[in-house]
Amino acid sequence: MKTVKYSKLVLILTYALTITTPLKAQSPSGAATAPAQLNLMPVPAAMQAQPGRLPITASFNVAIKSYTDDRLRAGIGRMLNRLAGRTVLTLPTSLATDENTATLVVQCERAGETIPSLNENEGYSLEVTDKQARLVAPTVVGALRGLETFLQLLQGDRNGYYLPGIKIQDQPRFPWRGLLIDVGRHYEPMEVLKRNLDAMATVKLNVLHWHLSEDQGFRVESKKLPKLHTLGSDGLFYTQDQVREIIAYARDRGIRVMPEFDIPGHSTSWLVGYPEMGSAPGPYTIERGAGIFEPALDPTREQTYKFLDTFLGEMAALFPDAYMHIGGDENEGKQWDRNPQIQAFMKEKGIKDNHALQAYFNQRILKILQKHGKKMIGWEEILHPDLPKDAVIHSWRGAASLAEAAKKGYNGILSAGYYIDLMFPASQHYLADPIPLDTTLTAEEAKHVLGGEATMWGEWVSPETIDSRIWPRTAAIAERLWSPRTVTDVEDMYRRLAVISRQLEELGLTHEKNYGMLLRRLAASENTGPLRTLASIVEPVKQYRRYQMRPQTMLSPLSGLIDAARPDSETARLFAANVDAFLSDAPRFALDRSDLEHTLVEWQSAGRALGPVIDRSPALQEARPLANNLATIAETGLAALAHLSSNDAATTEWRDAQLTKLDEAAKPAAALEFVVITSLRKLVIAAAELPQLNSTTPAEWNKRVTTMAGPSVAPAKP
Amino acid sequence: MKTVKYSKLVLILTYALTITTPLKAQSPSGAATAPAQLNLMPVPAAMQAQPGRLPITASFNVAIKSYTDDRLRAGIGRMLNRLAGRTVLTLPTSLATDENTATLVVQCERAGETIPSLNENEGYSLEVTDKQARLVAPTVVGALRGLETFLQLLQGDRNGYYLPGIKIQDQPRFPWRGLLIDVGRHYEPMEVLKRNLDAMATVKLNVLHWHLSEDQGFRVESKKLPKLHTLGSDGLFYTQDQVREIIAYARDRGIRVMPEFDIPGHSTSWLVGYPEMGSAPGPYTIERGAGIFEPALDPTREQTYKFLDTFLGEMAALFPDAYMHIGGDENEGKQWDRNPQIQAFMKEKGIKDNHALQAYFNQRILKILQKHGKKMIGWEEILHPDLPKDAVIHSWRGAASLAEAAKKGYNGILSAGYYIDLMFPASQHYLADPIPLDTTLTAEEAKHVLGGEATMWGEWVSPETIDSRIWPRTAAIAERLWSPRTVTDVEDMYRRLAVISRQLEELGLTHEKNYGMLLRRLAASENTGPLRTLASIVEPVKQYRRYQMRPQTMLSPLSGLIDAARPDSETARLFAANVDAFLSDAPRFALDRSDLEHTLVEWQSAGRALGPVIDRSPALQEARPLANNLATIAETGLAALAHLSSNDAATTEWRDAQLTKLDEAAKPAAALEFVVITSLRKLVIAAAELPQLNSTTPAEWNKRVTTMAGPSVAPAKP
Repeated sequence: MKTVKYSKLVLILTYALTITTPLKAQSPSGAATAPAQLNLMPVPAAMQAQPGRLPITASFNVAIKSYTDDRLRAGIGRMLNRLAGRTVLTLPTSLATDENTATLVVQCERAGETIPSLNENEGYSLEVTDKQARLVAPTVVGALRGLETFLQLLQGDRNGYYLPGIKIQDQPRFPWRGLLIDVGRHYEPMEVLKRNLDAMATVKLNVLHWHLSEDQGFRVESKKLPKLHTLGSDGLFYTQDQVREIIAYARDRGIRVMPEFDIPGHSTSWLVGYPEMGSAPGPYTIERGAGIFEPALDPTREQTYKFLDTFLGEMAALFPDAYMHIGGDENEGKQWDRNPQIQAFMKEKGIKDNHALQAYFNQRILKILQKHGKKMIGWEEILHPDLPKDAVIHSWRGAASLAEAAKKGYNGILSAGYYIDLMFPASQHYLADPIPLDTTLTAEEAKHVLGGEATMWGEWVSPETIDSRIWPRTAAIAERLWSPRTVTDVEDMYRRLAVISRQLEELGLTHEKNYGMLLRRLAASENTGPLRTLASIVEPVKQYRRYQMRPQTMLSPLSGLIDAARPDSETARLFAANVDAFLSDAPRFALDRSDLEHTLVEWQSAGRALGPVIDRSPALQEARPLANNLATIAETGLAALAHLSSNDAATTEWRDAQLTKLDEAAKPAAALEFVVITSLRKLVIAAAELPQLNSTTPAEWNKRVTTMAGPSVAPAKP
Repeated sequence: MKTVKYSKLVLILTYALTITTPLKAQSPSGAATAPAQLNLMPVPAAMQAQPGRLPITASFNVAIKSYTDDRLRAGIGRMLNRLAGRTVLTLPTSLATDENTATLVVQCERAGETIPSLNENEGYSLEVTDKQARLVAPTVVGALRGLETFLQLLQGDRNGYYLPGIKIQDQPRFPWRGLLIDVGRHYEPMEVLKRNLDAMATVKLNVLHWHLSEDQGFRVESKKLPKLHTLGSDGLFYTQDQVREIIAYARDRGIRVMPEFDIPGHSTSWLVGYPEMGSAPGPYTIERGAGIFEPALDPTREQTYKFLDTFLGEMAALFPDAYMHIGGDENEGKQWDRNPQIQAFMKEKGIKDNHALQAYFNQRILKILQKHGKKMIGWEEILHPDLPKDAVIHSWRGAASLAEAAKKGYNGILSAGYYIDLMFPASQHYLADPIPLDTTLTAEEAKHVLGGEATMWGEWVSPETIDSRIWPRTAAIAERLWSPRTVTDVEDMYRRLAVISRQLEELGLTHEKNYGMLLRRLAASENTGPLRTLASIVEPVKQYRRYQMRPQTMLSPLSGLIDAARPDSETARLFAANVDAFLSDAPRFALDRSDLEHTLVEWQSAGRALGPVIDRSPALQEARPLANNLATIAETGLAALAHLSSNDAATTEWRDAQLTKLDEAAKPAAALEFVVITSLRKLVIAAAELPQLNSTTPAEWNKRVTTMAGPSVAPAKP
């Protein structure tokens, strides 16, 4: 197994490449142009600017040198399509025959792994001069990674499209960089999976962790045990042909497909067709709620293992990946506690508790997987003294369990910190490191940390909304897992993320375009201005509060305002930055003042305009408190602004009254919460403390005010 | 064959249903609410408002009475999903068991035609009271039509969602209401076809005319003659399983799928694999250009008919529809003229010209189709004295040929007037009637007019843009073909079209959401404001000028500004209405003044802001003249506004200078043209003729100014 080589990476040049002089000098017209700012994501392991620029024109063409195969040609074809789409140039569709005159030369040595695996060499080097771009990689997969970098280098100016001169030497920090898609809670059609695989390839992710079974649905066809999918899926499952189609599609992009069949818990849907495998008599029906449920396979009966041998054997043949994920999480064993036969079995075998019983189960499953040629991976609950060392630990509750496993000699991957369903901003995920700076692992132990996976749990995603829950935030996680540990500039990450997010749309991703569509449906109108203003500064409540505050079932429509609203509000981030800049400009208070005022006036008028919109759209009734609060908080902000601008300190009474209003507005409604409250608190406090503010340094009072304004609901600043 | 019953239709109530009193009286809160304005499209044959309203709540449920089958249940399921999506209500997913308490009762008598056909009874009646909605139809297809009407009746206000009380008795005017999708020039993926079938069902269209072969591509798998698709399609073809999937998907929605294999011309792609069937020796390659090409099958050799017998026989078994379309258009016979064997054959048989030779070919094809149980339909060129009476004529050059065919006893359908690829506004298509008011056909002859088809020719559509070329305009054509001939209020059509267009988004249609996406890609930025302003008042040049002005190939990217821009600019339509209102308000000139000024200022600033956007995006360089002209025409408009508002007549010199500027700006660039020029001309002329305007009636001078402003580039006003 390939281990982590992060310590060997050398960042020749920090990311923000601003070597302007050579780029200017090479500008064909001789006119001064803005320095090229690169928008690479993930940031390569090492890169160096070179003089010159390579023009991209309608004569752009590609030559393949040395090894070639269908996968490489298809990858080049996709790159050409995207390049053409972006530049509106009609490019030659056949490969160049003369390596010397080709715009891009791709040179590979070999195909790479037949079945995508951890052993894949994904490295590549890319050199761009004013004559040619040259992509060199040991494997086709490395070349595919390099082609994505090539596309990200494209720039445009008055003189046309071009790539800046550059030398890149790149390879991943971790070999396991995944995205879990839970299709158990909500089925996702083939095209959703395909476009997400395309997006994954764009940011160099290499594992689709396909969470195929849940209490709420069993999503893969079993020819040997057909009641699994016929009775457990509402008819929403993937045929084996479709599974092969996804695997081939992923392989074409250098992506592994690892299936997960979550056992012994999370298995209600299995038991609809095969209740005799459960730990309680049944009958069972497909679960429609969200949460942790009791049904669990019976680990004490031989028929369970025979059943699983049949099923996992069939799946082992269907899925070529070396690993099979058996879940193993969140089984509370309540059915086990109540089953006398199970209790008798435990007594007889000397199994002291449910955790030990699950360890027994896991060992049996491990043998079955080994028999079928698979390595086992499971959620961190499977960690147990009896667990063999070739099992992989998937950490979801914290990096500590990953470190603990590594110290014990287990390989592991991290998902704690990458739970994108919790609605936290990209900045938080970005700074979660599988091997934090303060790690207690030795270099040798750290090699057990293989990487990580973003987890798209499926309780509240539909084909219309899933993209906006995955993207663009997952691109930040992809960078964490690929780029050197030292790449941690959050502001620069957000700058590049905006560019990459837009480029994802080329692949059909709907995270941006479905936002407007969902708002139009809700407003029952083309004119969504005020609703859009509201939606731009609220976010779905974090963690798992949505279900508590606004319960729905798996059969509910996911078309409410909470489904249109997105995590990681860019507007709130910009507003927070503007407020900070404005306050730091004391006692002048001119910086960003007009922007702030403009924004607050827009919120105020949107708040007022929303009433009639909501009147016409009963689906928006739940958002009425938000609409009212929108006007209120805007007025509060404007009043604070007036105090500050006129150097007229507000009274403490006024301040307290305003803070009370803001506290009230901070309460979620429709499971949505404003993420600009902290910034507004700052303005209010500042208005009341003008003398103090004017008599201290900006840094000092900003710190003080920030402390007073309380914990940020808005995304943490870098 | 079912003939047209338009003369028997009774419009009990004109469409704009504004019976406000009973609706108000039934408002549960007792508060006055706005009168319900219905958004039905197509308008039903007959309807009558009833008192009361039926609340739609989370307890909404459906009972099926009498006949039921999978198709009906699936249709109800789709309706429930859309109803839930729109209302954000968690609705029961199982059918109601008690007919008396169900919110909606669906009562059918029978399944309808096993294979969707012209004989289908699509009628239904729908009655909504404050207790229940009752949908009664002889067939499941009629019920499906009624379910679409049911969904379109949904309204919302402060008291929640509801359906207004109403009685509807509905059936189509014409039995053949189609949409041609040309997948020959550009292949369209399965999901594009499926979502367009969904959209067709929404507006009660019932024929997908699947144009499967062209010079530029052969798109269906032939197991018997595999070189057709393997060599003629670039790998972009539908497998026979996929064809069956589309047919089943369409049938589920009461839609026929009629294939077209265009012969003897338009057949280059056939000849790539089978050059021996051509009228010139070959070799042939897939055509990449747009236009009319020479390759044609050789109608003089028996092997051609053997080949076609094999192929059409295979397709006749694959496609269950009664009709097979053999194209037959635009064969200029140049290959025939140059082929001595063909010339000798004609001489020998006494065939006097190419038209007669094609008639000979058609008769041979007709026999083949008859042998395989199919009726023949072809483009109007097939009309010839020797053509048997059971062939159907598809008119594309004008309604005259349809009438001519009808007089001769041929059934026919109309596509002239419905060429949506020509980029004309919906208003024009809407007013094209298969049997115009001034028809010379007798009632008996008129029965030969079966209906019509919108034609989405595929030269310049991609999966990203095709929806915006088809929708929403095709909904207006669908209304023309379904609703009574007397339904011709263009303004009301546009009002309803906006609502229906938005509802189409529920089905995944991308006509609206891809607009912003394409603009973001072009601007290489999230901030597309100025570009969007420009795009909102330009339209692709009409008819087939695009290719002349901005040549591309079938392999070119369709991601330019012309591809983002859409026909039938709503902004231009509103601007024209505002200008007319403003001018009719002489001498006060107050009506809509601030709207006009606001709009013109926005254009002016967008025109100025576009420079830097274009600098960064070479793909937009071609649009620079448009950006410059945008500022110019806005300034002209503002200057005219100033003259009028201050009652300060402009000089004729000024007028002429401005008109020259407008003439200049009217010239297309990037194959796009401003569609607000006529309105601006009106303002300029008015400014110079203030005394005259102030001394005549609004109607008189508006007529005069309109004449002076020249033919409207903007959509014709009703």
